[in-house]
Amino acid sequence: MTRTVYVNGDYLPEDQAKVSVFDRGFLMADGVYEVTSVLDGRLIDFGAHRARLKRSLAELDMANPLSDDDWLAIHRRMVADNGIDQGLIYLQVTRGNPGDRDFAYPPKDTAPTVVLFTQSKPGLADNPAADTGISVISVPDLRWHRRDIKTVQLLYPSMAKMAAKAAGADDAWFVEDGFVTEGSSNNTYIVKDGVIVTRALSNDILHGITRAAVLRLAHEAQMKIEERSFTIAEAQAADEAFFTSASAFVMPVVSVDGAAVGTGKPGPVARRLREIYLEESRKAAV
Amino acid sequence: MTRTVYVNGDYLPEDQAKVSVFDRGFLMADGVYEVTSVLDGRLIDFGAHRARLKRSLAELDMANPLSDDDWLAIHRRMVADNGIDQGLIYLQVTRGNPGDRDFAYPPKDTAPTVVLFTQSKPGLADNPAADTGISVISVPDLRWHRRDIKTVQLLYPSMAKMAAKAAGADDAWFVEDGFVTEGSSNNTYIVKDGVIVTRALSNDILHGITRAAVLRLAHEAQMKIEERSFTIAEAQAADEAFFTSASAFVMPVVSVDGAAVGTGKPGPVARRLREIYLEESRKAAV
Repeated sequence: MTRTVYVNGDYLPEDQAKVSVFDRGFLMADGVYEVTSVLDGRLIDFGAHRARLKRSLAELDMANPLSDDDWLAIHRRMVADNGIDQGLIYLQVTRGNPGDRDFAYPPKDTAPTVVLFTQSKPGLADNPAADTGISVISVPDLRWHRRDIKTVQLLYPSMAKMAAKAAGADDAWFVEDGFVTEGSSNNTYIVKDGVIVTRALSNDILHGITRAAVLRLAHEAQMKIEERSFTIAEAQAADEAFFTSASAFVMPVVSVDGAAVGTGKPGPVARRLREIYLEESRKAAV
Repeated sequence: MTRTVYVNGDYLPEDQAKVSVFDRGFLMADGVYEVTSVLDGRLIDFGAHRARLKRSLAELDMANPLSDDDWLAIHRRMVADNGIDQGLIYLQVTRGNPGDRDFAYPPKDTAPTVVLFTQSKPGLADNPAADTGISVISVPDLRWHRRDIKTVQLLYPSMAKMAAKAAGADDAWFVEDGFVTEGSSNNTYIVKDGVIVTRALSNDILHGITRAAVLRLAHEAQMKIEERSFTIAEAQAADEAFFTSASAFVMPVVSVDGAAVGTGKPGPVARRLREIYLEESRKAAV
């Protein structure tokens, strides 16, 4: 079955979903995105993703092209038209197609480009990796310094994933000035002596939607949280490590640069947070 | 007249020049580019641009999709079909369209996307700004750390150009750890006591084609050159400042963060280098 892709108001067969070569998303990576998970045909943390989209657009001086209701309606139609039970909805907004290339932004009335597509992922919430945990390597964080804006400048995260693969690992953690910033497409955590440690929000990291939800749930569950930077050595000496993301939820990390973390198996904090997050976010899904 | 745009072997009217929304150039900024100037209908420094393209592709583990002869033939046809006397040829290669979105690179046999288009710029070599000089402001260099690879991750340079515009200046110079790295889309120079100073090549800056040619010509003209980093304060206290790029050639900079450089007018070194560069590169054009 061919997917239906949304492009600027049209619902198109995926092989007809195209943008101009002059689109600033294609020529200059001048665009932002969001990925929302779908469980049981409903949107997970949708309001928070929509709010972050608005923030990313505002930080780049781009207008929000659609109303809150329209964003929701389009997401729901994408779920319905593509028969998504478990999966992802990808959304991208670029500064549009000015008809030519120039570093300067085009006139304010240039229509932005809006693209949405789905990825069906049966078993998304039952990923077997959550039972075994995953391995990561560390790589230098060479990305730009506004990682709080969710732009499509994803070349280096892609390079990092390939470096991980080449090293026989599952993912990469970025290190800057001696401290872990975040994972290639996720926020990172360690647990030591019952305390959950994760880097504080700043322009250095993405303000993860799942991060915010998990920290809130951890707090409600009376868990101790420290928002501070940590090193790779601390991660290797921790009792547990894990990451959070919109598509992997809470994922245990059992090996960092070849060293087993804790017992080398997923720990109780990560397991518990994954359970709580999935339960609560399913309840709140729209 | 509508432009003819090259897309993956086809020569198309510009409004039909499109790429898939799944193209990695659009989704992940996973692509590189070159811009070659055209003077008198001929290509300036073409061999060097083609060589740098190959280097960029190799650094990103992408295959070079076309032979040297084919690259030249396509560039020449773009000049002819679009009747370019003075102007630019833009070329972009992306890791192609794998048909879906994934951080991991697609299989090696995924066809890259190749796009070329032209910009007609009558009077390109007679830009009046070369007679008056331009003004720049400094901004923090927040770009990623492989600036030697000419990727399409141009959002921050765009932001910097807009910041310059908002400040009433013409362009922005990036500063990192106290030193100027380069301009928003060009290499930067100062002249003090007869010595031309420009930052040495590294991953911190683009390995400018025009930079290489101008330094060679300056050397042949017995000018003194120091390849080292300099500060904004040094630029403000210099006798001259200028930048080089493929599309602006050699451009005097007469104001840095509001302070006049030297006499506040284009200096003799920049003028002379611009003359020599235009003369020599026109002779060598293909």
